Amino acid sequence: MLARDLAVTVPTVDLDTDGVAAVRLLAESHLPGLVVLDENGRPHSVLPGSQVLRFLLPDYLLRDPALTHVYSEQAADRLCSELSRYRVRDVLPKKPHELPVVNGDDTTVEIAAAMARLHSPVVAVVEEGRMVGAVTTAGLLDRLLEVA
Amino acid sequence: MLARDLAVTVPTVDLDTDGVAAVRLLAESHLPGLVVLDENGRPHSVLPGSQVLRFLLPDYLLRDPALTHVYSEQAADRLCSELSRYRVRDVLPKKPHELPVVNGDDTTVEIAAAMARLHSPVVAVVEEGRMVGAVTTAGLLDRLLEVA
Repeated sequence: MLARDLAVTVPTVDLDTDGVAAVRLLAESHLPGLVVLDENGRPHSVLPGSQVLRFLLPDYLLRDPALTHVYSEQAADRLCSELSRYRVRDVLPKKPHELPVVNGDDTTVEIAAAMARLHSPVVAVVEEGRMVGAVTTAGLLDRLLEVA
Repeated sequence: MLARDLAVTVPTVDLDTDGVAAVRLLAESHLPGLVVLDENGRPHSVLPGSQVLRFLLPDYLLRDPALTHVYSEQAADRLCSELSRYRVRDVLPKKPHELPVVNGDDTTVEIAAAMARLHSPVVAVVEEGRMVGAVTTAGLLDRLLEVA
């Protein structure tokens, strides 16, 4: 099996997608993370689900965990359901990082190694500079265990 | 909502679970990661799905990505479906790290902040030293969006 055989179509976001849309997309798609495209439609990064949660939290709560304890149950639910006005570009890590991207003709070993090394639950599959789909950890495991 | 209301029962592994069992459990449970318990039944760590893939790959492939390119499609599928003889303790990060664990009476803000800060798609919920369940990013988002 090659990456192009394993790639499935996934919804994507771009750098200016707002937090409300990104959170809803993650919840509805049941994906473990979102592929972020740049202005040319090429993969820019992958935002794992845990980092999509940053849209739910004011910045000071991420910097100072002790402050998360001051909210009552009701205030916490309200805060989390308000969603911030951040855009995708605001919650991406600042330093450049290696992209979780594989080529269409990459093998299962190359896909698994990329996910493991980059700690990414999703990799984008690219052919001739265009994203043709994505592979998730769950999707990869399902197909490998079929073969086994 | 508090962590104890959001906690769902999840299958767990221990430090001596072998790679075959861990990979099958992840694939069958459709969880984004596995909670690892220590010998006293307390949460030891969370192994995200991307790290469970390490069971599929010989160590030298993780250390030297260039070597992943030498396998043919068939050899790659065979390698990945063989599964290594590692145990959970072999693929956990060597340095101690903060545990993705919340208390039963922690709020949604505390759960979301723990997931975002520790980059963990699963947190274990503990009451009186015992694990009573776990919350996934997807589970948390589903419940928060119901309320919104």
